[in-house]
Amino acid sequence: MKISKLGEFGLIEQVIAPEFKELVNQHITGIGDDCAIMPISKNTSHLHTTDMLIENTHFLRDKIAPYQLGFKCLAVNLSDIAAMGGKPLASYLSIALPKDMDVEWMEEFMRGYKDLSEDEDVPLLGGDTTSSQGPIVINVGVTGEINNQHIKKRSDGRPGDILCLSGEIGDSAGGLQVILDALPEDPITARLLDQHLTPYPHVSEGLWLARHQGVHAMIDVSDGIGSDLQHILKASNVKGFIELEQLPISAELRQQAGACGWNAMELAISGGEDYVLLLSMDANQYEKLSGGFRREFGRSLHPIGHLSQGDPVITYMKDKQEVKDLKEGYRHF
Amino acid sequence: MKISKLGEFGLIEQVIAPEFKELVNQHITGIGDDCAIMPISKNTSHLHTTDMLIENTHFLRDKIAPYQLGFKCLAVNLSDIAAMGGKPLASYLSIALPKDMDVEWMEEFMRGYKDLSEDEDVPLLGGDTTSSQGPIVINVGVTGEINNQHIKKRSDGRPGDILCLSGEIGDSAGGLQVILDALPEDPITARLLDQHLTPYPHVSEGLWLARHQGVHAMIDVSDGIGSDLQHILKASNVKGFIELEQLPISAELRQQAGACGWNAMELAISGGEDYVLLLSMDANQYEKLSGGFRREFGRSLHPIGHLSQGDPVITYMKDKQEVKDLKEGYRHF
Repeated sequence: MKISKLGEFGLIEQVIAPEFKELVNQHITGIGDDCAIMPISKNTSHLHTTDMLIENTHFLRDKIAPYQLGFKCLAVNLSDIAAMGGKPLASYLSIALPKDMDVEWMEEFMRGYKDLSEDEDVPLLGGDTTSSQGPIVINVGVTGEINNQHIKKRSDGRPGDILCLSGEIGDSAGGLQVILDALPEDPITARLLDQHLTPYPHVSEGLWLARHQGVHAMIDVSDGIGSDLQHILKASNVKGFIELEQLPISAELRQQAGACGWNAMELAISGGEDYVLLLSMDANQYEKLSGGFRREFGRSLHPIGHLSQGDPVITYMKDKQEVKDLKEGYRHF
Repeated sequence: MKISKLGEFGLIEQVIAPEFKELVNQHITGIGDDCAIMPISKNTSHLHTTDMLIENTHFLRDKIAPYQLGFKCLAVNLSDIAAMGGKPLASYLSIALPKDMDVEWMEEFMRGYKDLSEDEDVPLLGGDTTSSQGPIVINVGVTGEINNQHIKKRSDGRPGDILCLSGEIGDSAGGLQVILDALPEDPITARLLDQHLTPYPHVSEGLWLARHQGVHAMIDVSDGIGSDLQHILKASNVKGFIELEQLPISAELRQQAGACGWNAMELAISGGEDYVLLLSMDANQYEKLSGGFRREFGRSLHPIGHLSQGDPVITYMKDKQEVKDLKEGYRHF
């Protein structure tokens, strides 16, 4: 059988993870969440996450500036630490570069990588550099730490929980559309591009949310909430409801989508790469937590649905009615 | 300027590392040793290392079995943990695969990866899988821990120290020659190939050596002792002497080299990928330590030279005379 038939998740679930079940002891969380979790003391655990980006699969060299690429490859890993509620401590960068590339490209790449490292106070402590006869390849690993009482797993969702987002979704997918459609730069396309090329990870938001026991499951939105919520549902064995009218879609995306004939709702649900946090919380604590979040960050949490008992599938709702056909549902937005 | 002009070490020293000096606090060891070292308590530090392997740069798909590649990509990282004297705790695997590859290839790869993971009791806790439109790319990261009193840095070498190797060198380079010369399989070529394709990291040896205060600097032999000793000399600011007659070269390599016209000495010094440990130790403790090592591991440490005050350069010696021209020196072996 070909790899392409299994897909990424099939490969992990069927070929990679089963081999290691016996080697992982009960106190450790291995494959299956945003980060691996290893307890290092009674109070603290060590977190680790890693992501690989390959030219022509994950980015096109002439469509992303090296500064942006350096920034983004660290951002996506910090976002995984944020999704557990952890504090990032250090990063590790492996990079393979074709020999004929200019040193200036790498200097710009490191400038972007360092700007985000400084903003989040996360030093680069090691890595690997090598030459590539093919594409640019980047692998970033980030280690972090977390108070054991604050860990937010995908499996912590409970029936009755309210689902929230820590920011708007769809702008990143809109930015990708700007690139694909080769749209000219204006304030709106520039904002969408920024969200796609230099997403800012919600590390502070994740740390704040993690301190509250009312927050249960958490994940970052990397593949699109349709796919990412599914991970929470499966791990928590609950059913999910998303209210389509409540999805936080920016005015900019709505405007650009209207002008270009894109479907803003579809971009918001299946676009991905937003790197905001998707979380479930105790419904009784929602008022208190959303008020605290607003005071802390100057903007609101966005409630988008809830969890209930039942099979781990998503039901999309509009005007209190189930939307049977999402493609059909998209058309009405 | 092109990347190729700077080279790997130039890129790290001039473009990557300087950016992060301010972000790394004094208790942390970042870029510049086999692993990064982060203290996590008064007694313990966390170690991390990472390595990237790219098809056609680091391996040829039809010259290494997937089982061997899975084994080796973990081995080279465990060897970096061994070089600090640390205990490996967990590994992280990122892998990019062309879509048309067979799942069986990946199953065999994981079988090799897991066999070494089991032998060393190091679970795989996470990673990333993605498709590649070009080469196979593998990035492995390994975390470990170490007692703060046991850390062996490259910078710990002292004048008067004896230099030792924890195993023979050159067989791996011999194995590469077997591949390049397309030699038929026999017991000798098979042994050389094994050393090249499935090197066994000296983790137990590293842990044992690290417990002894008489052991000072340590590094693993990945680029060849000519290059790896240079790292110790530079970091410790000492001069190094290597006695060419004392280099531990296997009977198998000598025999095959004789038959094929290879220079065994050259392969031993500049071949690399041996993944044995190169260490410096207090000369007064040599007898005690080498006796203990023999009792523990059933084989000897190999003394190959010493350190002295002076500029960080290597002097090669033969019959107590300096070998001015190493290429010339090779000819006499």
